Amino acid sequence: MEVEEEVRRIVEQVKELNDSATSFVSSSSHEELSLRQRSSLVDASITRLHSTLVSDKHHHDPKLLDKLEEDLQRARCMLADGDTSSFLPSKPQGRFVRMFLGPVNVRASRKDIQLKVKEEYNSYRDRTALLFLVFPAILLTLRSYVWEGCLPAFPVQLYQAWLLFLYAGLAMRENILRANGSDIRSWWLYHHYCAMAMALVSLTWEIKGQPNCVQKQKGVRLFLQWAMMQGVAMLLQNRYQRQRLYTRIALGKAKRMDVVWGETAGVDGQLLLLCPILFTLQGFEAYVGLQLLRTALTGVVGEWQVLICGILLVVMAIGNFINTVETLMVKSRFKAKMKRSKSRAELD
Amino acid sequence: MEVEEEVRRIVEQVKELNDSATSFVSSSSHEELSLRQRSSLVDASITRLHSTLVSDKHHHDPKLLDKLEEDLQRARCMLADGDTSSFLPSKPQGRFVRMFLGPVNVRASRKDIQLKVKEEYNSYRDRTALLFLVFPAILLTLRSYVWEGCLPAFPVQLYQAWLLFLYAGLAMRENILRANGSDIRSWWLYHHYCAMAMALVSLTWEIKGQPNCVQKQKGVRLFLQWAMMQGVAMLLQNRYQRQRLYTRIALGKAKRMDVVWGETAGVDGQLLLLCPILFTLQGFEAYVGLQLLRTALTGVVGEWQVLICGILLVVMAIGNFINTVETLMVKSRFKAKMKRSKSRAELD
Repeated sequence: MEVEEEVRRIVEQVKELNDSATSFVSSSSHEELSLRQRSSLVDASITRLHSTLVSDKHHHDPKLLDKLEEDLQRARCMLADGDTSSFLPSKPQGRFVRMFLGPVNVRASRKDIQLKVKEEYNSYRDRTALLFLVFPAILLTLRSYVWEGCLPAFPVQLYQAWLLFLYAGLAMRENILRANGSDIRSWWLYHHYCAMAMALVSLTWEIKGQPNCVQKQKGVRLFLQWAMMQGVAMLLQNRYQRQRLYTRIALGKAKRMDVVWGETAGVDGQLLLLCPILFTLQGFEAYVGLQLLRTALTGVVGEWQVLICGILLVVMAIGNFINTVETLMVKSRFKAKMKRSKSRAELD
Repeated sequence: MEVEEEVRRIVEQVKELNDSATSFVSSSSHEELSLRQRSSLVDASITRLHSTLVSDKHHHDPKLLDKLEEDLQRARCMLADGDTSSFLPSKPQGRFVRMFLGPVNVRASRKDIQLKVKEEYNSYRDRTALLFLVFPAILLTLRSYVWEGCLPAFPVQLYQAWLLFLYAGLAMRENILRANGSDIRSWWLYHHYCAMAMALVSLTWEIKGQPNCVQKQKGVRLFLQWAMMQGVAMLLQNRYQRQRLYTRIALGKAKRMDVVWGETAGVDGQLLLLCPILFTLQGFEAYVGLQLLRTALTGVVGEWQVLICGILLVVMAIGNFINTVETLMVKSRFKAKMKRSKSRAELD
């Protein structure tokens, strides 16, 4: 009978397919393991050699030393930017991701997918930066022209729920980028956790407060103004970081090894614009935080939420400041080193 | 010079390693693609043959028909439970996950990891079920014996923030399970989204309300009582579902094909206990929702939050009821079919 025959054949096919799948899974996981082991061995050797070079500094000719260090740096870049990157030992998955997702592997197995994830993260930041600008702008405009100086509770709470959602998404995505080998400073993750806590706390904050609405809502108004500035800064920052990424992808596609070296080329001008904006923003953030603390402690508005939000804002401002300064210092140290090796190369 | 030689060797090693990684990535992705294509072809053939069998019912001997259908079912189980499972076409990633994580692949590449993810999900549910029981119990006890019948705002808000966090985690994990081939009904995901909305809304709800605290907080009290019952039901449900999973893993390890067939064996007694509890719970949920609606509409508490929470509770109760009934109907249809084929086998 025909149908019977067909069913028999299907069962046979499924068995065969299952066997090929099993052998593929076992052989590829075997090969993967060996690549993993080799990668971490080579990675360890590079680190070891580098520290040998640094400690034996005075034994070597400085020109040779610079050349060897450069070679090692190139080797490290090749390891981290090539197909080997997915076999390097990864940072342990962040607790935040584990808490929400469980033990799921969020590491992309191929470099091009890793870059796609980063690209999508950047466009997510772009979209949110626009909302960051538009949302508080609308609230402040309506406050002045429609609501007669006193914000109603619902739109502000909607805004705060959106902030909670936004920072959760950012924290999640940045944790995933870290697991994929990105070098995001851990402070920015802590910053997002603080911002989530603040959004949650301010959701429970009773802001509709006749009488004395203007005084009671001073903190909210300052916060909205700060958020608008933050939106502008985010847009500029995104532009800057995106150009860095594009350079990286282009060089990676061209199989060039010196990816990190050309990274900041051509965008230094933007950094000159970005830095003062970032520092102003951080100063204003601290100011809003201190204002909230003052109102909480002098007893104009005696709710615990005001106190907590004030503390969180000050903590975030200080953390942001320290980390921006540290990033700038790393960049300038790196630039000095590049200049030195460049002038040496010209001397030769 | 020794160090120079070592650096040269390292650079060489990195190049070699990169080449092997590149060839491994390209060959394995090639093989993966072919396995994917073969799997979806076989899967489509099974579906096609099954519909042929069903439409030609009257042309065949009923005994032969049953046997062929069983064979096809076994083939489908083998495809879905074996190593082929990760190559089957997957459901598109849920929007909820994409919203928070971006385009990250959360599908496990091996069956044993998929089962580990499910096992971890179950233990997560266990932990949360206990908290689901303990948290409201503490609040209600303190309310009676310490707070003199009137809940303060902060602990209740803490509880609601925890609920928000909990349901976000559940929704995330269940979306991931679905992407890994689990057959969770989509209603349960919508249920979690509703629950998240409710937690968010109730965070903004002013509950500290002297005078008339007892009347104002009636909704909160009922909700906490319902949550305690929910904790008990979750614990029972987890026990039941965990036994099903263990059976599945054990059979899978033993390379048995008839995984789905033995799935409900031995746990029917528990279902008899579980069903009335679930239905009572759903009734009580609807009651709490209607109470909230009544207070909102008669104007005792005129806040929009009460209205929204009432609507959400009623919607969740109705959805839960419909989906529980549908699940039970699928189970009983399946059992009837098993009985029929069993008695036929005994006749032979």
